[in-house]
Amino acid sequence: MDTQAYVVQMKSKPLTLSGKVGGLFPAKPHSRRQRWEVKPSEMSRNTLNPIRAIVDGMKLIPNPAKPMISLSIGDPTVFGNLPTDAAVLQAMKDAIDSQRFNGYAPSVGYLRSRQAVANFYSRPEAPLEAEDIILTSGCSQAIELSISVLCNPGDNILVPRPGFSLYKTLAVSMGVEVKLYDLLPEKSWEIDLQHLESLVDERTSCLIVTNPSNPCGSVFSQEHLQNILTVASKLCVPILADEIYSDMVFPGCNSPSLASLSSEVPVLACGGLAKRWLVPGWRMGWILIHDRNRIFGSEIRQGLVRLSQRILGACTVVQGALESILNNTPPGFYSSTISCLQSNAEICFSELSAVPGLNPVMPSGAMYLMVGIEMDHFPEFQNDVDFTERLVTEQSVFCLPASAFEYPDFFRVVLTVPEELMLEACGRIRDFCRAWYRPPSCDGNDLDQ
Amino acid sequence: MDTQAYVVQMKSKPLTLSGKVGGLFPAKPHSRRQRWEVKPSEMSRNTLNPIRAIVDGMKLIPNPAKPMISLSIGDPTVFGNLPTDAAVLQAMKDAIDSQRFNGYAPSVGYLRSRQAVANFYSRPEAPLEAEDIILTSGCSQAIELSISVLCNPGDNILVPRPGFSLYKTLAVSMGVEVKLYDLLPEKSWEIDLQHLESLVDERTSCLIVTNPSNPCGSVFSQEHLQNILTVASKLCVPILADEIYSDMVFPGCNSPSLASLSSEVPVLACGGLAKRWLVPGWRMGWILIHDRNRIFGSEIRQGLVRLSQRILGACTVVQGALESILNNTPPGFYSSTISCLQSNAEICFSELSAVPGLNPVMPSGAMYLMVGIEMDHFPEFQNDVDFTERLVTEQSVFCLPASAFEYPDFFRVVLTVPEELMLEACGRIRDFCRAWYRPPSCDGNDLDQ
Ligand SMILES: Cc1ncc(COP(=O)(O)O)c(C=O)c1O
Ligand SMILES: Cc1ncc(COP(=O)(O)O)c(C=O)c1O
Repeated sequence: MDTQAYVVQMKSKPLTLSGKVGGLFPAKPHSRRQRWEVKPSEMSRNTLNPIRAIVDGMKLIPNPAKPMISLSIGDPTVFGNLPTDAAVLQAMKDAIDSQRFNGYAPSVGYLRSRQAVANFYSRPEAPLEAEDIILTSGCSQAIELSISVLCNPGDNILVPRPGFSLYKTLAVSMGVEVKLYDLLPEKSWEIDLQHLESLVDERTSCLIVTNPSNPCGSVFSQEHLQNILTVASKLCVPILADEIYSDMVFPGCNSPSLASLSSEVPVLACGGLAKRWLVPGWRMGWILIHDRNRIFGSEIRQGLVRLSQRILGACTVVQGALESILNNTPPGFYSSTISCLQSNAEICFSELSAVPGLNPVMPSGAMYLMVGIEMDHFPEFQNDVDFTERLVTEQSVFCLPASAFEYPDFFRVVLTVPEELMLEACGRIRDFCRAWYRPPSCDGNDLDQ
Repeated sequence: MDTQAYVVQMKSKPLTLSGKVGGLFPAKPHSRRQRWEVKPSEMSRNTLNPIRAIVDGMKLIPNPAKPMISLSIGDPTVFGNLPTDAAVLQAMKDAIDSQRFNGYAPSVGYLRSRQAVANFYSRPEAPLEAEDIILTSGCSQAIELSISVLCNPGDNILVPRPGFSLYKTLAVSMGVEVKLYDLLPEKSWEIDLQHLESLVDERTSCLIVTNPSNPCGSVFSQEHLQNILTVASKLCVPILADEIYSDMVFPGCNSPSLASLSSEVPVLACGGLAKRWLVPGWRMGWILIHDRNRIFGSEIRQGLVRLSQRILGACTVVQGALESILNNTPPGFYSSTISCLQSNAEICFSELSAVPGLNPVMPSGAMYLMVGIEMDHFPEFQNDVDFTERLVTEQSVFCLPASAFEYPDFFRVVLTVPEELMLEACGRIRDFCRAWYRPPSCDGNDLDQ
């Protein structure tokens, strides 16, 4: 039916004006440009990366007397202390040698690779089939497709503050409004559910939950996840669960996936190989479609499939290796990554807890730690950007100012560095703070000592 | 400056309403959804793939007595007769072994890989530097970024008919109007420049030129390319040159890149590894920014960089292998691919030329051949879709109806098959046409015999 309509439409060719090619042409009813004038589109101008906007505006000139330690980039591969597992590399080489993964895959990914992801993440409470999986070019594309399928221009989405900046970058470029809901540092970065609820209106088309969190390193308890689901269910807002750090939680900490706790709320869970398998450059991500209550229905699925056809998804070699990567990576690989992260978190937390004017918040997972700056005690600096910029100039340590995550007066420490660098960086941060810390003034009724 | 403004903006937190989490909440001024209602976005509904729309609507049930020969998919890897070169595979394995390409690359690609592409495509008349290159996830993403940076909703772009369907798929989903300009089969599929010119108006933001062509297999002469540039220059319309089949031209046929022939017209040339290196699944594409007249200026470049940050580009392993792939693939690999394509083109052309009711058009490059169907002589069939569907049912040969390229009454043959299958397929097409061909009726004044 559709096909026929399509064909008929195509048969109507526009009238061709007569005249000679390259010669003089009859006057046209529509006007044309008289001179060159090529401007970038609105969308390209509205694609703003706050991290770039902030970092590019900083004067990052390290102290030449000290080697630079950059704790700013969420890329676990930069220091070389956290290589991916040999089994992961072998899976890739096997995929290449097989020569079976050079052609086009279906736009949503090879069936077999999707089946492997389904098997890996399926739980009795939240079963997954291959058809529930869409493979994407990194978790970033998973997020892009998810927002694209759920939101129209003029809609709004709920985004955590502090939070990963890509959500806003993508949404704003699509004409989707971003409403920031607060996370509460004093409650281990749980969501201020009341604030969240106050933001919802009829045009709220998606709630983004990042768990475990970038930039906080927080991991929500099962109870808190259930409370989030209760709110989503009451307000009828579907969830985009960014679970790229799933299973990257410190021992003793239980972290079920959001979708496993609700059979009602529809969830698009986004993930990928980037963090847990330590290969962010490989651009392998996925969407897990959880829809046990059939609220997404076939329409959202089909929408995702259609969107996946725009640029196709992940590199087929990585797709070909995926089954083996998921099934053959030894458990010890995951746990040793987590040990390293936890040990660095403990070092960083205890070292910075002892520093006057800093309030680190102990993480439970992911690969980050947030540190509050008591700006009152650092009158020399205007804000977190200023503070972290000077930390580079004087101590050659670079931490991302949390303004990049919509959360001023904090900075984020990346925990994937070798232990000695973690210690060295903390020592330098301590020296820096000691040099600039000003105790509360004693005049007036300043009682908060 | 920008940075500061951004930070200030982020400091204004919305007011939080007081009340208890999970308890009763004060009435909100804005209404909320009372029940679940999740609909796919306009954009996802407007992302239409005509090939899928047509093929999914066809009843493709092969004749069980004959093994299926599918000449429908532009994937040179499906038959196994055109493997990529061993040097290409080795470059990938070296990149994996080096362990240097697992982390995030810059969003536009590694500098060194971009330099390699620049060196490979640089010409004295059209020099390229690393900064002129943007690496993308396949040529598809190169096209997507190029349209995205040049076009606003309400603009229009000029697209060849027949032409590759992705242009329309992407443009329509972005609210960009598509104006189809005609290619002339009787002139080896040259552009009807007059028709093209008649379509241009003030909102025309880009002219797409595909050379060599999918679906036509045509290769424009230098003179024709110069005429295209003259029109673009006169009308002040920048060009998106889809050159994914560049250098895939039959011997004796000269095919300069469009950009090498003009120092005035700004060109975004899109390409990639998919076709010439026979690895479409690897999703390695690029944009070459040609702007010797500084019409794009820094703004379009920066727009492309910003857009590349949305999902990041190509898999880092392929990026890491790129320099070696470009520099170490033996020339004999390219020429033997072309020999195979040319030989199949000649077989297919001569076989089908002898078939009553068919008008094949001899290609000069790429990997396709278009065949006109004299529908008058096949009264049994309504159109090309009907015709190709029955060809499957009876002869188990599948060619894509050219309605998928906005060009009814033609079908496209993919030439990447082994020779014996090409011959077998042509034989079956001949049998099919002989069975259904009806000579012109002798009553009336039918003179066109
Ligand atoms: C919370 C979060 N989501 C998504 C991503 C993007 O992941 P990918 O590199 O797979 O696109 C990141 C990367 O840092 C992240 O921190
Ligand atoms: C003309 C044309 N451009 C672009 C592409 C897409 O290339 P890629 O697979 O690198 O995205 C194709 C694929 O068939 C094509 O024929």
